Amino acid sequence: MARNTQVAADHDAPPITAILARFVATHPTRGWDDAVDHEAHRTFLNWAGCAVGAASHEAMRAALAAVQMLEPAPQASVLGRPEKVDMAGAALLNGISSHTFDFDDTHLKTIIHPAGPVASAALALAEHRGASGRALIDALVLGIDVSCRMGNLMYPEHYDRGWHITGSTGTLGAAAACARLLGLDEARTAMALGIAASQPVGLREQFGSMTKPLHPGAAARAGLLSALLASRGFTASSRALEAPRGFAQVVSTKCAWHEATDELGRRFEISFNTYKPFACGIVIHPSIDACVQLREQGVTADQVERIELKVHSLVLELTGRKEPADGLQGKFSVYHGCAAGLLFGRAGEPEYADGIVTRADVVALRRKVVATVDDSIDEASADVTAVLRDGRRVHVFVEHAIGSLQRPMTDAALDAKFAAQAEPVLGTAPTAALIAACHRLATIADVRELTALARP
Amino acid sequence: MARNTQVAADHDAPPITAILARFVATHPTRGWDDAVDHEAHRTFLNWAGCAVGAASHEAMRAALAAVQMLEPAPQASVLGRPEKVDMAGAALLNGISSHTFDFDDTHLKTIIHPAGPVASAALALAEHRGASGRALIDALVLGIDVSCRMGNLMYPEHYDRGWHITGSTGTLGAAAACARLLGLDEARTAMALGIAASQPVGLREQFGSMTKPLHPGAAARAGLLSALLASRGFTASSRALEAPRGFAQVVSTKCAWHEATDELGRRFEISFNTYKPFACGIVIHPSIDACVQLREQGVTADQVERIELKVHSLVLELTGRKEPADGLQGKFSVYHGCAAGLLFGRAGEPEYADGIVTRADVVALRRKVVATVDDSIDEASADVTAVLRDGRRVHVFVEHAIGSLQRPMTDAALDAKFAAQAEPVLGTAPTAALIAACHRLATIADVRELTALARP
Repeated sequence: MARNTQVAADHDAPPITAILARFVATHPTRGWDDAVDHEAHRTFLNWAGCAVGAASHEAMRAALAAVQMLEPAPQASVLGRPEKVDMAGAALLNGISSHTFDFDDTHLKTIIHPAGPVASAALALAEHRGASGRALIDALVLGIDVSCRMGNLMYPEHYDRGWHITGSTGTLGAAAACARLLGLDEARTAMALGIAASQPVGLREQFGSMTKPLHPGAAARAGLLSALLASRGFTASSRALEAPRGFAQVVSTKCAWHEATDELGRRFEISFNTYKPFACGIVIHPSIDACVQLREQGVTADQVERIELKVHSLVLELTGRKEPADGLQGKFSVYHGCAAGLLFGRAGEPEYADGIVTRADVVALRRKVVATVDDSIDEASADVTAVLRDGRRVHVFVEHAIGSLQRPMTDAALDAKFAAQAEPVLGTAPTAALIAACHRLATIADVRELTALARP
Repeated sequence: MARNTQVAADHDAPPITAILARFVATHPTRGWDDAVDHEAHRTFLNWAGCAVGAASHEAMRAALAAVQMLEPAPQASVLGRPEKVDMAGAALLNGISSHTFDFDDTHLKTIIHPAGPVASAALALAEHRGASGRALIDALVLGIDVSCRMGNLMYPEHYDRGWHITGSTGTLGAAAACARLLGLDEARTAMALGIAASQPVGLREQFGSMTKPLHPGAAARAGLLSALLASRGFTASSRALEAPRGFAQVVSTKCAWHEATDELGRRFEISFNTYKPFACGIVIHPSIDACVQLREQGVTADQVERIELKVHSLVLELTGRKEPADGLQGKFSVYHGCAAGLLFGRAGEPEYADGIVTRADVVALRRKVVATVDDSIDEASADVTAVLRDGRRVHVFVEHAIGSLQRPMTDAALDAKFAAQAEPVLGTAPTAALIAACHRLATIADVRELTALARP
């Protein structure tokens, strides 16, 4: 394998369980610069919008019905739904909904979706305890730092082997965030991480089933329970992450220990978080982005003779479906993505509805897309030329798609993405109020003010 | 490695998720001979006695306090305690207590403790639903068959790598048992197994901490939830166990697929379950057994000049501690084990109390034990000679210790083990009633009759 698979023997393993526990327990509140705090708010907002947007998906209905078999106490909110359930159930359910449309955040270095496990666990606990928004943001930053650093330590070997890294590292991040919210000391935070280490969640084989979004939910639930146990004196190995039969060495042959500790407390992994503007795999994003730009330049569908698309071979390998028959297949069609971008100027979940993917004008336009492979073009780029009926050629080259680290979505674009997901669930005015609450989360005295706004 | 590490490529993998799901969903009630049904009752009884016996251990107090933070509905019993909690909490807590003293059952081929995850999940669900004892026994046999077959498929590589195989396979067994109790059809049972496959629990690094007994508890809880989700239509990969990025290939490099299916429905793994007569590692059992036999032959401590013990080198490697300072260290001292066997005729949890391990007469006797290594003696055997002050030599050779497959504990011995654990918690008469109820479990119309007897 060409990728880095550095392996350290056990005697090289620093005591990362203790180091990370000390960091989580003792790092000062808002102990980072404003950009980090701002990114944490963006991460939370994007996560919450995805959770509200999928609140009525059949996966959520099934999972909620299962949780209700436990007759849970109404401790915490299921975002976008009227029901309240116990903290463990809320962590599970919000973790599921936030990942259902695969529209949540991505830590590109590890392809972890970090908010799903961490925010779902932390919000459930914070809501039940009436914690402050400041405490919740702190927990989010620290929890995501733990899960993404553990991901850096093991990626790519751990992922290549078949672990859904979002869930397997997510239990740790969720436990860290909840330990912080509970105010656990170093020793008990280490126990929380240790208990969580025994509960990694997620197999890549589940991709395409409801169990994929279950992974961040189950990780959130297990991480929350780990912190609750530690808070009551339950014990684990104090070397659970690094020991020879501990977490990292059992689930990965790559253990780059330094990733856990390099610049700890100075570099925050949440800074590298990204958000999807389009509700499909990232490999299609540059092509959609290019077609949105064509539309912004005045190109309309009825002018188009054909669309010449040049992309890296990987794009067609993964998303080369020419005639998608429904919404799910549409997510694996760069042709549909281009049509949606040009026709609608966006490709959110509504543009992947069955009725849209099969609509006559959409089908007609996607059939005008002529894709060719050009491996001199980066996977993260796309070269698109609209050839118009009048003979004009309009060319757009996208080096980095909107939503990438190089061209992050603006706050306004994140708000629009949130609104598109949440308005059908909550209505326009409540959605605007919830967006505003997410932006000022750190100043909210009691997060129940925010969760109340997420209830229809 | 000398042991079998047969690896099959994916294209050899039979559809074991579907095969096991069909088996669990459709195998007839009591579809086995009487010996299997009898062993299932013994397994349940031994598990319940261990759970009751550890009900007040500090690990249980900590875990119960954590579960109570979720304000659970009183759906199911915590054995040996007055509290009731929701099904998920009861599965967790009974799983913890049953393994706290490491005194539960052992499937020797895989060193899985099968009842912990399976019985804990199944009883919680059966109690809440008012299921029959017959249905519970059926679920126990089938669930244990699933977890132990998956263990056979991956053992020893999976264990050697660092997984606590009781928890990692236990989630599957618990899900299978609960799917059966819920009456799920083949398709939904496959989904339950699939959902569970994403939630393996347990690292060997945790041995020595409370998280070791958490493993069967967390596996029970995850397996129960998997079945509840499947019952409400939640989906997973239908090849979650065997696919290249599915359970077995992600957590093991040995995948002997035939182990999942050989003689399925004709050979039941619960038939190979064993029960510990002594509350310590199995490697000491032959030595303790021999000293109990010396006592039965009339040898008393004050007669003894010395005890000559010949054992395999592994025994002294693992349990060669000459001067244990407390109960926990006593469990790693074959010297203390011999002293307890001769002085008390048993080595249950009370004989590993700190005050017993340091008592003067116990210390004096264990110092008379002279151990020598003899690798011509099997690990499962012990050769003991008591040299008396009057010059007589009394010799006992134990080929297979009591509790082994070759010399199983009698039903009466299991009852006595149960009573020794449960009487301090429940009292004498209620303990006798509970033992009787376990023996006639298959005839009980509603298992709540039994769980009521386990409440102090």
